Amino acid sequence: MNALLKITTPESSDTHSIIQAREQNASTEQAIRLDLAEEVPVALVYNGISHVVLMATPQHLIELAYGFSLSEGIIEHASQIYQVEVERHPTGITVYIALASSCFAQLKQRRRQMNGRTGCGLCGIEALSQLNMPLPPVVPKIQITAQQLAQGFNRLTAQQLINQRTGGCHAAALWQPDNDTLQVFEDVGRHNALDKLIGWRLLNNNPLGALLLTSRLSYELIQKAAYAQLPLVAAISAPTGMAVRLAQQAGIQLAVFVRDSRVTWIN
Amino acid sequence: MNALLKITTPESSDTHSIIQAREQNASTEQAIRLDLAEEVPVALVYNGISHVVLMATPQHLIELAYGFSLSEGIIEHASQIYQVEVERHPTGITVYIALASSCFAQLKQRRRQMNGRTGCGLCGIEALSQLNMPLPPVVPKIQITAQQLAQGFNRLTAQQLINQRTGGCHAAALWQPDNDTLQVFEDVGRHNALDKLIGWRLLNNNPLGALLLTSRLSYELIQKAAYAQLPLVAAISAPTGMAVRLAQQAGIQLAVFVRDSRVTWIN
Repeated sequence: MNALLKITTPESSDTHSIIQAREQNASTEQAIRLDLAEEVPVALVYNGISHVVLMATPQHLIELAYGFSLSEGIIEHASQIYQVEVERHPTGITVYIALASSCFAQLKQRRRQMNGRTGCGLCGIEALSQLNMPLPPVVPKIQITAQQLAQGFNRLTAQQLINQRTGGCHAAALWQPDNDTLQVFEDVGRHNALDKLIGWRLLNNNPLGALLLTSRLSYELIQKAAYAQLPLVAAISAPTGMAVRLAQQAGIQLAVFVRDSRVTWIN
Repeated sequence: MNALLKITTPESSDTHSIIQAREQNASTEQAIRLDLAEEVPVALVYNGISHVVLMATPQHLIELAYGFSLSEGIIEHASQIYQVEVERHPTGITVYIALASSCFAQLKQRRRQMNGRTGCGLCGIEALSQLNMPLPPVVPKIQITAQQLAQGFNRLTAQQLINQRTGGCHAAALWQPDNDTLQVFEDVGRHNALDKLIGWRLLNNNPLGALLLTSRLSYELIQKAAYAQLPLVAAISAPTGMAVRLAQQAGIQLAVFVRDSRVTWIN
């Protein structure tokens, strides 16, 4: 096995790193430089209490803090967060969030109820009895055409800069065809990409638009979209059954398998 | 918005369901039936204690229980689980696992240390200080060629039956080109697909082979492969930087961007 070399170059940054690898085709083999998306442990600390560690692409962490807080029901308004500070360590990144005391009291109450280890699926849920998710109904409405969605996804592909280098990042974007504006956030985790976008919206008076996602649509993404009051979620790939049912409950329209000028509409 | 209809047909099952949707092309629009992969809350209960709820494709749950238990370090051998019972409810599925008392004592100890809510990233980790993951070194070795890997992935595509219907499932497979054997597990969650495969291996004397994954390679998949002593992990897409470093630590060879007869080897 070849030794792994981390080559530091001007292109290398905290969001990606370059290593040596070997590319083998049917007849040839050659050394190549491979650009990797970095995932970094990011701890979110609310008023001094460590709450969660996310594996994330280490940029737009202020937006991540606001977006995670909103989409997990910890805050309802940006004003409930007084300050966000980002501290980088050799082992990861700590994001300190100063939270309004009413929100913090609720969070502590939730933490007491969720005593014990939880895992790789539902945030903080360790028994089926805790699985009760009445989503907030999504009030805003938007109209968008299949052509406009296709146009948005074309622009999105061109703006996925980390993914172009690494092939390893998802993106979430807000597409406003009327203003010709596309705001893109990338992350190794599709949930984080969406939380960064949601945080950015919260800090910018919640502009309305279509949410574009480069991933499949599972239920958590719909949950987050509902908390962020996003009325239309478009994805290049498939939704799950539960995602469709939750979207219907919350009043979110879905556009799935968006490819070229084809769209499959649900709801 | 159209009403969402759940149509019960002979093709509808607990792993997928069929709804009505509208497919729009540049010039036409038509009603279609869309086949959706189901994700179902699956609670793992060890000796009566609810441990975690996973969102999973509701099949091969015995394998999931064994695989999750091994890849999360709860057990080391299949004999440490005495019985697995699967109970289906309207709200989800409970998997009751009867665990050897020594493993259960350790699990309870871990649960006490991980007091509090955790989230969408690292299983049970809520502060950077808990992030210390010495992976077990992987002892077995295998040799495989780029041609053999390509052949394995071709067969895998043909065996992703739920994904063929729904476009919404990942797969993990064990490929043994010498016996011409490919064992495939599908799931809406790529971690679950891998856990199902790991559980199946554990129940079948841990056959050696190449692990094929239809997803990107992030660090948790490498962690699980290390606990399962899988020496070669191949994926159709990109690895993250942390996945590469963990694989190097554990002595796992990576084959990434496996497409047609092209392979990129790392380590």
